[in-house]
Amino acid sequence: MSNRPRTRDLGIKIGNLEPGKWNAITDVPGIRVGHSTIIEGKGKLVPGTGPIRTGCTAIWTHGGDMYLEKVTSTVHRINGFGEVTNAEQIHEMGFIEGPIMITNTFNVARVADAVMDWHLARNDRMGAETWGVSPIVAETSDAYLNDIRGRHVAREHVFHAIDSARDGAVEEGAVGGGTGMTCYEFKGGIGTSSRKIPENLGGYTVGALVQSNFGLRSQLMIDGVPVGKELLDYGGRARRASDPARDKQSKSIIVVVATDAPCSYRQLNRLATRAHNGLARTGSHSGNTSGDFVIAFSTTRRKYANNDKHVVTVEQIVETTDLISYLFWAVVEATEEAVLNSLFKSETMIGRDDRVAHALPIEETVEIMKKYGHHGVHNP
Amino acid sequence: MSNRPRTRDLGIKIGNLEPGKWNAITDVPGIRVGHSTIIEGKGKLVPGTGPIRTGCTAIWTHGGDMYLEKVTSTVHRINGFGEVTNAEQIHEMGFIEGPIMITNTFNVARVADAVMDWHLARNDRMGAETWGVSPIVAETSDAYLNDIRGRHVAREHVFHAIDSARDGAVEEGAVGGGTGMTCYEFKGGIGTSSRKIPENLGGYTVGALVQSNFGLRSQLMIDGVPVGKELLDYGGRARRASDPARDKQSKSIIVVVATDAPCSYRQLNRLATRAHNGLARTGSHSGNTSGDFVIAFSTTRRKYANNDKHVVTVEQIVETTDLISYLFWAVVEATEEAVLNSLFKSETMIGRDDRVAHALPIEETVEIMKKYGHHGVHNP
Amino acid sequence: MSNRPRTRDLGIKIGNLEPGKWNAITDVPGIRVGHSTIIEGKGKLVPGTGPIRTGCTAIWTHGGDMYLEKVTSTVHRINGFGEVTNAEQIHEMGFIEGPIMITNTFNVARVADAVMDWHLARNDRMGAETWGVSPIVAETSDAYLNDIRGRHVAREHVFHAIDSARDGAVEEGAVGGGTGMTCYEFKGGIGTSSRKIPENLGGYTVGALVQSNFGLRSQLMIDGVPVGKELLDYGGRARRASDPARDKQSKSIIVVVATDAPCSYRQLNRLATRAHNGLARTGSHSGNTSGDFVIAFSTTRRKYANNDKHVVTVEQIVETTDLISYLFWAVVEATEEAVLNSLFKSETMIGRDDRVAHALPIEETVEIMKKYGHHGVHNP
Amino acid sequence: MSNRPRTRDLGIKIGNLEPGKWNAITDVPGIRVGHSTIIEGKGKLVPGTGPIRTGCTAIWTHGGDMYLEKVTSTVHRINGFGEVTNAEQIHEMGFIEGPIMITNTFNVARVADAVMDWHLARNDRMGAETWGVSPIVAETSDAYLNDIRGRHVAREHVFHAIDSARDGAVEEGAVGGGTGMTCYEFKGGIGTSSRKIPENLGGYTVGALVQSNFGLRSQLMIDGVPVGKELLDYGGRARRASDPARDKQSKSIIVVVATDAPCSYRQLNRLATRAHNGLARTGSHSGNTSGDFVIAFSTTRRKYANNDKHVVTVEQIVETTDLISYLFWAVVEATEEAVLNSLFKSETMIGRDDRVAHALPIEETVEIMKKYGHHGVHNP
Repeated sequence: MSNRPRTRDLGIKIGNLEPGKWNAITDVPGIRVGHSTIIEGKGKLVPGTGPIRTGCTAIWTHGGDMYLEKVTSTVHRINGFGEVTNAEQIHEMGFIEGPIMITNTFNVARVADAVMDWHLARNDRMGAETWGVSPIVAETSDAYLNDIRGRHVAREHVFHAIDSARDGAVEEGAVGGGTGMTCYEFKGGIGTSSRKIPENLGGYTVGALVQSNFGLRSQLMIDGVPVGKELLDYGGRARRASDPARDKQSKSIIVVVATDAPCSYRQLNRLATRAHNGLARTGSHSGNTSGDFVIAFSTTRRKYANNDKHVVTVEQIVETTDLISYLFWAVVEATEEAVLNSLFKSETMIGRDDRVAHALPIEETVEIMKKYGHHGVHNP
Repeated sequence: MSNRPRTRDLGIKIGNLEPGKWNAITDVPGIRVGHSTIIEGKGKLVPGTGPIRTGCTAIWTHGGDMYLEKVTSTVHRINGFGEVTNAEQIHEMGFIEGPIMITNTFNVARVADAVMDWHLARNDRMGAETWGVSPIVAETSDAYLNDIRGRHVAREHVFHAIDSARDGAVEEGAVGGGTGMTCYEFKGGIGTSSRKIPENLGGYTVGALVQSNFGLRSQLMIDGVPVGKELLDYGGRARRASDPARDKQSKSIIVVVATDAPCSYRQLNRLATRAHNGLARTGSHSGNTSGDFVIAFSTTRRKYANNDKHVVTVEQIVETTDLISYLFWAVVEATEEAVLNSLFKSETMIGRDDRVAHALPIEETVEIMKKYGHHGVHNP
Repeated sequence: MSNRPRTRDLGIKIGNLEPGKWNAITDVPGIRVGHSTIIEGKGKLVPGTGPIRTGCTAIWTHGGDMYLEKVTSTVHRINGFGEVTNAEQIHEMGFIEGPIMITNTFNVARVADAVMDWHLARNDRMGAETWGVSPIVAETSDAYLNDIRGRHVAREHVFHAIDSARDGAVEEGAVGGGTGMTCYEFKGGIGTSSRKIPENLGGYTVGALVQSNFGLRSQLMIDGVPVGKELLDYGGRARRASDPARDKQSKSIIVVVATDAPCSYRQLNRLATRAHNGLARTGSHSGNTSGDFVIAFSTTRRKYANNDKHVVTVEQIVETTDLISYLFWAVVEATEEAVLNSLFKSETMIGRDDRVAHALPIEETVEIMKKYGHHGVHNP
Repeated sequence: MSNRPRTRDLGIKIGNLEPGKWNAITDVPGIRVGHSTIIEGKGKLVPGTGPIRTGCTAIWTHGGDMYLEKVTSTVHRINGFGEVTNAEQIHEMGFIEGPIMITNTFNVARVADAVMDWHLARNDRMGAETWGVSPIVAETSDAYLNDIRGRHVAREHVFHAIDSARDGAVEEGAVGGGTGMTCYEFKGGIGTSSRKIPENLGGYTVGALVQSNFGLRSQLMIDGVPVGKELLDYGGRARRASDPARDKQSKSIIVVVATDAPCSYRQLNRLATRAHNGLARTGSHSGNTSGDFVIAFSTTRRKYANNDKHVVTVEQIVETTDLISYLFWAVVEATEEAVLNSLFKSETMIGRDDRVAHALPIEETVEIMKKYGHHGVHNP
């Protein structure tokens, strides 16, 4: 597990709201996160064999039976050069059933099939007497560091990520689906953050978890400071501030937003849209070939698979008080900080063909922050 | 008021569900409908002057203050060659505030402005201390019969339509916004119908009201019978079954769907989509230049303008019982029958340049229905 | 191969336009269709083992390299209780790369993974130096007849469907992905049809291919005739015209629409929307749990994977002549006839637990058509 | 006309690309901008009478007949608490006909009606023999400073804005539709900017024009510097960094993006989405009651009203070279700078009830920029 600091450990405070206890998506009650990390081999790429720098991450949407109790949810497309399986069904029915999985691009189908196995093993009637499950698998591409052709995330890795998921602190950086990812041309991966809504507005929590794999170094902005431009030459490769050729390699970002505020499908669309603001604040231009998706859900608005009532009574947030504004701010802030955490927590990784993804350098970043007037920023 | 029969008066029963008391959108409790019908002059078109064959129709979404209590709603676009004002806001906020107005294409702005006047006169604080109102105005084009350049629907006509609205039986045919409309190359206009959901599923009502102004005669289908093809030469103009040139004149249809079933925005989208099935069953191919929109709302899911609670408890239909299927069927059936009612109730009209829009001939239609095995159909 | 007649063999002519040579999607130049049909075992369901009544169908979007030359395309959701993989990418980029696959619901992931294998075997650089491929897999559920838990469509079946695809006549009925499907409570499956646009409008072709698996028997309408109601008791099971409980089992329909008319993404959306009209004309109410999707593409509007020009010149249809209306009509007619062909061509099948899906009875249907005034309909 | 400096006059360079000659939307060939500014009265609000601080702005999409030659376009909704008239038609047909108008919220209908007058006066056949025009009117609310109930933008103001439109430098700040607007709790209004694409990528231009009326002061960020937080107490009113009550007043932003790059409807959607990034970079959280819309169009992709060809040949940008990335960056940069220009160019305004909207203070802002390491920023 990475010993590197998180964003707040450096005195960088994103936004105005307070994080939850773990400053993680798991601050939303019931949510659990698990990773399978696969790192094997080194040196020259042998397609289909290795080196392997990949994995998958599982998010439990609540602590119960996720098939029988589906959470209200949406998918928001910022730039759709990528896949979130069963997105059309989410839009029609407004729910997600089962864990949310994030992995690499080539492994989507195998992970989805393994999620079906996981459900089938727990439900004898599925397919024989009842509907099946619609797995939710999102992805970004780790082809820069990983033998992506090998589709190395296997059934057992999926089961492990789901079954080992737990609440509390979330492992960040080069773990799970984020193992082989790069972000702003530094090492990226998994990051998470959360925000608390004041008690007088309901005391809800908003959490974000990202698998970051996007952006040009020149664009990276930390709390408004152009850190990327200042670090253009870091790591030995001279770069230009605006190198169009690099943007062809623009990759992807998956943002998962969770809240226990009782939001409808339409309201979750509104929340999810604000993750775009959070990404833009880190410098993103939402690149042409980037699969930028936001999956948002409410843990407390559930739909029951076998409900035989015709009408139910549900809680729903009102959009005429301050609560909705706080929820929006919370999404922006948690998304922005989750991306930064994915950078700060990731250690340098050497992948296929000895390609190096440098970790964002802590000391240099602290110095740059100070240079730009953020004098409270400090080494951990 | 037209003495012509409605669809059911001829023994034509569309679908399986039973209509409400009035077989009209007003069967949904609280809904009121009002018309302003403007028929003046005859003979050659003098653009900006006449002849006038136009009007507007107002639908009250409930019996209370429609600004302070907004109904949950959606707009569904089948073919968007037309306008529904404030459609984007409906999608964002999921509500409609104020009456739904239907008029002619050129009059949309003036009707919308008059709706603002109507609201401003009732609310001193609007614009000074509070938000304004977002008028909902839909349209179809009566340029075939009417001096549409004249924009003859004035403030007083809008006020009259709103203020004279009432529940109970709804006037159909060449009235209100439907005054100058044509449908399947017969005289069309306003039509309405409703369906009751069985008591054991909640006893809800679904109502539809259309302003019909679309379709080629050759396409017209009544309960599956190709009435249009059989009547191609009716009225003295020989027609061909497939005359592409005619489709350039394809116009529009506005369908308003109302229900007291407590549906969310997402669920209303699902209901609204089924109006497309109802239209297709009358023969529509959803023509290229047709503005085909469905506005759907739930009278019992309301949002309060000044709500200071952060969370409310609302009723919502469940989508795992038979109720949702019945609601879908009700939308299909009520839409289909509303279109047919707009045809059966409309009398022949002579408009600008002595253009004639023939009424659908009752006796001939009855004979055709019998010829195609519908032996229970009879003259009124 | 089924010896049963197609719709036109019975003298039933849907619409006004003429079909192409094969009255099949393969009338669009370059398109090929292949099936893998898997029928094994009988008797009681042993979940994961059998009996097996399933398969997959592959559609080549053109005769060249489908990865390097992507066809302009869209996906239209009528009712999204189902999956079309990579739908979000289609909306963002407006293209499909590789064959379109249709299979059963539980097999989507395995088929998608096999499609990747198929591409990877043909492209060494994929994933190592270039982007991967985004497989397009659609589905309907054959759980009524098939051991769907078994996910019996394996890699070799996918390869066979793709590699054996050919132009000319298309096998219909209980083949390929349609093997275990039922439609309007008769045996359904694969059906196809096409329409020619007149030469003076460009002579284009529109083809449709469906995998039909939807609808209640009472709803089935053939050319306006309520065949389903007349056959309610056919096959020994008494049914009621409106049985809500049956609609819980409403399943799905995949419509693939192809044309060589050079349509943009936006224009294909407009075409795809009209497939809804075609489905409604066969009686569909677009059931609650039905995954009703339309995939539409233009074979002549292609995007090249490695294009290094900044701007290209492309052909595009104009929307102010009769061409667009003819294209719309062609979509409606070909979709309607493709569904009917899937019914007429399917033979009775006995599946898991000795469940029987009766073929639509030809003689009885002919009699009903005559009873409803369609005197030209005849036995084959 | 405001003598205040534009963003670049202060040495603040947003992004990496170079602006066009005027650093304005008019750098896109053929585009013209006109304003009507209405400032009358002072003191206490007399609803319906004054004081008046409002107007309208007209954008010519090209220099020819905008009805006969429609430009390819889209509307992108970031937050839909507002109106863009005829948005659904833009989505269906992919074009805008006539000038784009921006005004105040209550005046939308009157401005739309006046736009119809303007067209009708130029086209005798409209409505008599041809379709009408679908006016495009967007809005933000100036109720804070203006007697918005009065709907003071009259026919002659609309005509003047359209008829006086010209190319070259664009007047910014408290002019036209922006007259009474506020942005980040400073005086806002009209702002514009442009970016040039390098010659080797085609030499295209992207221009943005905004009517800014959104945001909390605490959120304002200029080139990454938290200027708003540093100026919380400027103007005599103490503010808190996070005051939820203020966000209830969140208002709106209209962004118009124009380019001469030949983009399709789908491609313009992709461009328009990036305006969101530009807004976020100025600090926006896309407030709950903000009508945040992007209208994007391509001046060189036109549709002809009376085209009788069935197929045309059009130019279209390719999405596999650097061009698309540059276009995205250009949208982000031009949008961000247009918002800042609207702030820098606006002078302090006193409106209804003696409410004061302070201009963003130049000297203080320069000092803050320097404090945060932007040492090249200077007084004008």
